[in-house]
Amino acid sequence: MQREGKTLSEIGEDELVKRLTQDWPELIKNSATIDGNPWVILGAGDDCAVLRTHSASVVQLVKVDAVVENVHFLPDAPPERIGWKALARAISDIAAMGGYPVSALITLGTHGDEKYERINRIYRGIAQCAREFKVALVGGETTASSVLFLSVTMTGLAERNKVCPRCSVRDGDAIFVTGELGGSLRGKHLCFTPRLVEAQWLVDNFKPNAMMDISDGLAKDLARLELANNLHAHINFEAVPLTEGCTLQEGLCDGEDYELLFTLPQRKAKALCAAWPFRLALTQIGVMTKKPAPKISGHGYDHFVRS
Amino acid sequence: MQREGKTLSEIGEDELVKRLTQDWPELIKNSATIDGNPWVILGAGDDCAVLRTHSASVVQLVKVDAVVENVHFLPDAPPERIGWKALARAISDIAAMGGYPVSALITLGTHGDEKYERINRIYRGIAQCAREFKVALVGGETTASSVLFLSVTMTGLAERNKVCPRCSVRDGDAIFVTGELGGSLRGKHLCFTPRLVEAQWLVDNFKPNAMMDISDGLAKDLARLELANNLHAHINFEAVPLTEGCTLQEGLCDGEDYELLFTLPQRKAKALCAAWPFRLALTQIGVMTKKPAPKISGHGYDHFVRS
Repeated sequence: MQREGKTLSEIGEDELVKRLTQDWPELIKNSATIDGNPWVILGAGDDCAVLRTHSASVVQLVKVDAVVENVHFLPDAPPERIGWKALARAISDIAAMGGYPVSALITLGTHGDEKYERINRIYRGIAQCAREFKVALVGGETTASSVLFLSVTMTGLAERNKVCPRCSVRDGDAIFVTGELGGSLRGKHLCFTPRLVEAQWLVDNFKPNAMMDISDGLAKDLARLELANNLHAHINFEAVPLTEGCTLQEGLCDGEDYELLFTLPQRKAKALCAAWPFRLALTQIGVMTKKPAPKISGHGYDHFVRS
Repeated sequence: MQREGKTLSEIGEDELVKRLTQDWPELIKNSATIDGNPWVILGAGDDCAVLRTHSASVVQLVKVDAVVENVHFLPDAPPERIGWKALARAISDIAAMGGYPVSALITLGTHGDEKYERINRIYRGIAQCAREFKVALVGGETTASSVLFLSVTMTGLAERNKVCPRCSVRDGDAIFVTGELGGSLRGKHLCFTPRLVEAQWLVDNFKPNAMMDISDGLAKDLARLELANNLHAHINFEAVPLTEGCTLQEGLCDGEDYELLFTLPQRKAKALCAAWPFRLALTQIGVMTKKPAPKISGHGYDHFVRS
């Protein structure tokens, strides 16, 4: 089989994940079929996994997310910001599911020649972010690795009827984004604020049909939203909110915005904009419908394909 | 400060973890003090974190554990066994807390030149282990890394009164180990069976005061048990069960045995041995008391110190 000889850069990240999860249908796609394991509500493919709790009205969210040196941060990044980013990314995912974070475990991969002081400063950044968002740091581990990485496991909770999975967009939904997009590499990617407060307000007041955070760029994440719902995004490109000085291409493809991308019925759009209580921008950028739409040009970030 | 210039290999893994967690006392040691986060029962420092659930009699266990190429497996290891090992290590930790596994998320770090077929075989090994121990694979992520690593997040559940933390050894407790120790690098480290069945039987029938799994070698893990309890292990070295062909030194220090190390009152030791229903060996190797004991010579595995 020719497939066997292919490398990951030839296959790409989304296709890799699709193949790996296809090979486990009974475990991932329908975990409820595992005898004696009735806990799974939603498995792979969303921002977080969703598990039952002992309360019928509350679900647990579980997420893992890693940052790797030279991929998610450069060696000269301020160590506190590396730690902040590692935790804030996971909080952003929990927020985008409509939940709030509870606990985190940190895996540190590094090598013996690493300076203690740098690691200590990274952990100070983690603690600072944990304090700000009331996340209990409950453990983790250290392991040897020639490349510095931090993998964050986060658990959270959500009211069951407020969970916003990615796959429940409805035909005709308005598409919204928070904040401004593009240019995150100039610094925002190291010190962004996860949109937890805004997401909690949304699920309490204008429950989105679907929500996710924008981590790999609007173009790529929107394509995932389309695919998950078998719908098409009709985007008003002039409306896409851009970071000052950014081109549309950068706004669509830079990635690491960590803003919210969500949909709700068009009839609620006006009331939402009127009620929105935050200084953070809120912008309707289009609608999702069954009608085919032109493909957005450009690509977001792929971890395995060389750009 | 001289401390600032030190590398991790000068400090060592246990000291690193101690320092990092000392710097977060309010978050890690007493997470209950975080306003609005009443979920933590036990934070860092044990095999797993322990969280409250919505049931008073059940707790949740959360664990992360990573395997890294050239540290935990060599590049030529059979890929299925790498996947098996990654998941089985986390199951071993959940078992050693007296719980059972529920769900797992897998973080894969690798690079674009990696062959798809190898990754697919690794994930088949993960799925095989998940099926055998009824773990639902509910997600994870892929990320770029120059070194192949797998980080496993596992959640589990335990009856609250059956949890076996590491820090509740009592003066005079008998010390037991399961199986045989040493020589795991000859192959066992890639295909061991986590002692879930045995641990569940123990907590149901002879609840240990404390339990952990032996991952870094009996010498090192026993020293951690002593430290956590401020007690001393008096070991009968002739009783330590050794893998065929192994020296005592290897049995104490090789690491990666993934056997259970536990303590219970000496008065129950005889009844336990009589009732033990498994073919797997069960051996009392000593007692824990307040009396100082000679230090065990040799060291287990340290991730940052060169051997």
